[in-house]
Amino acid sequence: MGYKYGVIGSGALGGFYGGLLARAGHEVHFLFHSDIEHVRKHGLRVDSKLGDFHLPRVRAYGSPSQMPECDVVLIGLKSTQNHLLESLVTPLLRSDSIVLVLQNGLNVEQAARSFLGSTQVAGGCCFLCSNKVGPGHIRHLDYGRIVFGAYRGIDGKDTGPEAHRLEQIRSDMVASGIEAHLTDDLPTTKWKKLMWNIPFNGLSVLLDASTDAIMADSDSRSLAARISEEVRQIGCAAGCLIEPSYVDWVIDHTDEMVSYDSSMRLDYLHGRPIEVEAIYGNALQEAKRCGFSAPIVTTMYQQLRFMASHRKASAGMVSQ
Amino acid sequence: MGYKYGVIGSGALGGFYGGLLARAGHEVHFLFHSDIEHVRKHGLRVDSKLGDFHLPRVRAYGSPSQMPECDVVLIGLKSTQNHLLESLVTPLLRSDSIVLVLQNGLNVEQAARSFLGSTQVAGGCCFLCSNKVGPGHIRHLDYGRIVFGAYRGIDGKDTGPEAHRLEQIRSDMVASGIEAHLTDDLPTTKWKKLMWNIPFNGLSVLLDASTDAIMADSDSRSLAARISEEVRQIGCAAGCLIEPSYVDWVIDHTDEMVSYDSSMRLDYLHGRPIEVEAIYGNALQEAKRCGFSAPIVTTMYQQLRFMASHRKASAGMVSQ
Repeated sequence: MGYKYGVIGSGALGGFYGGLLARAGHEVHFLFHSDIEHVRKHGLRVDSKLGDFHLPRVRAYGSPSQMPECDVVLIGLKSTQNHLLESLVTPLLRSDSIVLVLQNGLNVEQAARSFLGSTQVAGGCCFLCSNKVGPGHIRHLDYGRIVFGAYRGIDGKDTGPEAHRLEQIRSDMVASGIEAHLTDDLPTTKWKKLMWNIPFNGLSVLLDASTDAIMADSDSRSLAARISEEVRQIGCAAGCLIEPSYVDWVIDHTDEMVSYDSSMRLDYLHGRPIEVEAIYGNALQEAKRCGFSAPIVTTMYQQLRFMASHRKASAGMVSQ
Repeated sequence: MGYKYGVIGSGALGGFYGGLLARAGHEVHFLFHSDIEHVRKHGLRVDSKLGDFHLPRVRAYGSPSQMPECDVVLIGLKSTQNHLLESLVTPLLRSDSIVLVLQNGLNVEQAARSFLGSTQVAGGCCFLCSNKVGPGHIRHLDYGRIVFGAYRGIDGKDTGPEAHRLEQIRSDMVASGIEAHLTDDLPTTKWKKLMWNIPFNGLSVLLDASTDAIMADSDSRSLAARISEEVRQIGCAAGCLIEPSYVDWVIDHTDEMVSYDSSMRLDYLHGRPIEVEAIYGNALQEAKRCGFSAPIVTTMYQQLRFMASHRKASAGMVSQ
């Protein structure tokens, strides 16, 4: 018997992983926002390189108060919406429910931890190229691996959920066709992910370019590697051992990636908030805590904050 | 008796200073490019906060081969055109003519030095807010100070022009209403100017913003100060003593400046080449020579090179 899942934020990420769990027969309850009426009528559609599928009937809700208690709540919401998290998640919780936060950025689990016990919060990184292309319609372009584990807090002193419960989640995921791995060292996993997100999410907005355009130009390609190296150094200063050669892996891996618009670029072009604080601000908080100056990441952070607050009229005019 | 002047590049800068010299009765020969027919018919018009003026007849040429030998050749051309410099300047030269290079950036005098003797090249910084707004029509918005002096080469071993000859130029300028100063230390003057150009020219393109928008936002304002400080440190590493408080002066001074689109932003928006190499590339060459890493300026350089080679369709569509 698998767990009962709730999905808060059923978009490119939550809709994809929740959809795979539901397709495999798990009980999955999805919270939708603007797409709820469409999904009630037409279900959830996922075009995936793993095989397209359509779930004509899903357990779809327009409000969390109508949702049942769940063993596991997957957070697929953007971190820019975390001020809503408590009100969205609380109706789904038992005292031992696990909340698995699948957001980009560092210490994004703190928003859940602020109203949950130390054994309830897990975090994960998704290596996923996926976009929402229409109401209840997700296009999975590449990858899909999840690496997740106990969130131990900023000071590393929380226990996090029991290992056998995390293993149950992993097992459910693997049985659903998801490449899922557990980690005992979530911070190192997060910093490795940031070594991609910090260069490529930011440059895609600052240079108005897709990842393949960034990779094809010798200046931006070299810049991406320099940024990734600075992120590695912050991670090392914060106590995570990441080899210098991991920068090469990030760059090589991006070369092999399909042409992809990062979530930050899509958010920016569609006039939605961008995850500057979760990805850049929180990484810089950690750098500051360690006395590391991080000149390039600070520069990107300040540029992105300017861009976010001075959106041009043309941004936000791309059709959804 | 003043000197006889030639002006190569009679735009926002060369047209302004040459126009003031001509208005005061100096013999000034102007090389025009696309504006030549208009200027022959209608003369040169300068709208200036120092007082508007119109010179109905100027010594205007469409080709340097028609121009006479001059005592002083002012270079108002953009450094991006320096591959043309020798062919444009040579017809105006006697063996002792002085070429005064008034271009943004570092070691931009090298282009002239490559075909001129060690006593012939001077360089200067113009603290000038001026735009060309139409054919033969210049709008001077603010400032206008020139600080110039002998160019002593990258290795500092050239003699540069004799002091009394530079003093004659300064005297001619001052008598024409130009605030002109001589410096014995052109490199320090150049680095101080770069402490403005490097942050504000680059950010105006990268953030698509005027100087007052950059100054009004706390992130970009702080970023501009951090960039200016890094430029100061490169300058110090290169042997120029510039106090840390000069960063505050740059920022305070920019606060007081009229709202202004930097020349780099205008060039970018009009689809013209931008002076990335003269301003950023040459400063980074100097940093490299001194073993200074300059992470922020390197980041801007790589971003700007990407922007310059991936101009969006919208750029270049602003009317001249």
